[in-house]
Amino acid sequence: MIDPTLQKIAWHLTEGRNIVILPHINADGDALGASLALGLALRSMGKEADVLVEEEIPSNLDFLPGQELIKSDSQKTYDIAVNIDNGDITRLGGRERFFHSSRVRLSIDHHATNKVIADYSYVDTGSAATGEIIYDLILNYLKADMDKDIALCLYTAIVTDTGGFRYTNTTSETLRICADLLNYDIDFPYVIKKVFDMISYTKMKLMKQTMNSLLLFGNGKLAVSYLTLKDIKNMKVRSDDYEGLVNIGRNLEGVEVSLFLREELDNQYRGNLRSNDYVDVSKIAEKFGGGGHKRAAGFNITGKLDEIIDDLVSAILPEIRGVD
Amino acid sequence: MIDPTLQKIAWHLTEGRNIVILPHINADGDALGASLALGLALRSMGKEADVLVEEEIPSNLDFLPGQELIKSDSQKTYDIAVNIDNGDITRLGGRERFFHSSRVRLSIDHHATNKVIADYSYVDTGSAATGEIIYDLILNYLKADMDKDIALCLYTAIVTDTGGFRYTNTTSETLRICADLLNYDIDFPYVIKKVFDMISYTKMKLMKQTMNSLLLFGNGKLAVSYLTLKDIKNMKVRSDDYEGLVNIGRNLEGVEVSLFLREELDNQYRGNLRSNDYVDVSKIAEKFGGGGHKRAAGFNITGKLDEIIDDLVSAILPEIRGVD
Repeated sequence: MIDPTLQKIAWHLTEGRNIVILPHINADGDALGASLALGLALRSMGKEADVLVEEEIPSNLDFLPGQELIKSDSQKTYDIAVNIDNGDITRLGGRERFFHSSRVRLSIDHHATNKVIADYSYVDTGSAATGEIIYDLILNYLKADMDKDIALCLYTAIVTDTGGFRYTNTTSETLRICADLLNYDIDFPYVIKKVFDMISYTKMKLMKQTMNSLLLFGNGKLAVSYLTLKDIKNMKVRSDDYEGLVNIGRNLEGVEVSLFLREELDNQYRGNLRSNDYVDVSKIAEKFGGGGHKRAAGFNITGKLDEIIDDLVSAILPEIRGVD
Repeated sequence: MIDPTLQKIAWHLTEGRNIVILPHINADGDALGASLALGLALRSMGKEADVLVEEEIPSNLDFLPGQELIKSDSQKTYDIAVNIDNGDITRLGGRERFFHSSRVRLSIDHHATNKVIADYSYVDTGSAATGEIIYDLILNYLKADMDKDIALCLYTAIVTDTGGFRYTNTTSETLRICADLLNYDIDFPYVIKKVFDMISYTKMKLMKQTMNSLLLFGNGKLAVSYLTLKDIKNMKVRSDDYEGLVNIGRNLEGVEVSLFLREELDNQYRGNLRSNDYVDVSKIAEKFGGGGHKRAAGFNITGKLDEIIDDLVSAILPEIRGVD
């Protein structure tokens, strides 16, 4: 099935000579992997392709092939600009001017919130990663050759955005594409290790502290854990270091609901709720002025930690027992 | 490509009426998932199929469909016995007699060490999981219908033995099969959560203790952590609770070698070594009378903990620095 917009995009890329590829700021494995894969394919077609990025490549993505295409700035004028994996053109940061000053502006993305205006904009929200679209573009529209380097970039893009094929966005097509990419003899266990397993020393300390704080209620069905400002005193914590700490409680055998509280300002806490099987935590979050989904919700709350925990445990236990 | 042994196996299963399916003791996701998938397919063909198991189904596999096929004992005489995912017939435990007393003895496995003697024994070491072989058997030999329940069992089998597509045994064919299984609308994120993410409270305590013990040497390139008998005093630890603790150090950003020491008897330690990129830890393990592979090795050592750590750090640091 040939998509007319992708066909136009491929036509312009084939006609162009100087192409600039622009992933969103704080480029992750999908943005960077998809960009480098496209850049490598275009280079193999005899094009000049630059991948312009805003910041240094994070250490967990420094293994990606095609790093020689990456530049932090450029004096060139480009025929073609391609916005990649980015639903909001202001998220190009200082590189937005390269998009607007190019003769033809193209955009390829998979975010439902995409509002980019371009000469040709292709958004496929059914693709788990922009890397899936680039795979299709390279093979079926540009008719370029797939090779080991391009396959490694695309595999990285796709595992990043699917959490290693664990998120619900993973489709049969996702696995079919990766089945093909594995034919190129890529070192996929290394990719997984770099993208998912590596954590900072700070993150490990936060995990340890979260485990130390963990309390069980309701015959082990409710796990409560927290981090206070005192706990993180003198630590350089990046915002993504906090990610997933609520899952320490959720992943304990027998636990149905996990509550994780993080003190953001003095006596002001951000609460995160997760459930495993049957409790609708969005209802609990709403009682405290927050919201979310059945299995993941959040809220803000002010007060003393022990009183907050008392209030929340009292609100959560009836939901676990199925009594209101 | 039709395999003559699998064809014979399918012929006997098609001819048989009473079939007993026998996974290895301590059945894991592959053994149980493959057994239940085969049992469900045979039942859909009008056969009587029992899956005999030695022990209770572990709580992380209690979601598998087809639990009604599972029995812990039987008074029946069976036409056909099928040994599943088991390379050593004594690993059927008390159920070995069902194998020997059946009219036709079949065996399906993927372990290179397989030494089972049966009327027809199929071993494919290229399959990441026995579940892959059962998928092939059901669709291409038995010509039975795939359905959501069978797909869920096979998906569980395959993700279990590939660590969620992370181990090197994962092939293009592995992903192709799972791409097909996802077409049956299975709740795969739930499977992943049950099989991989759930940990016991005891395991969490061991992880916390391991993190507490963790020391970095060589500018953060060597992580050393340990568990002593004192640490696990009064705890009911299952042997699999120790699994993966060495990876806490390995997964820290910047770490090249992780050493994890576990006191098994008074002053007697089991040492585990992992490396990320370049150190051959088998060479280090050999110096201490052990062995293994480049990236994973082990050894036994006796002595006082602080002296053991001193000796090992002295042996490991030159390898990290590339000096001998």
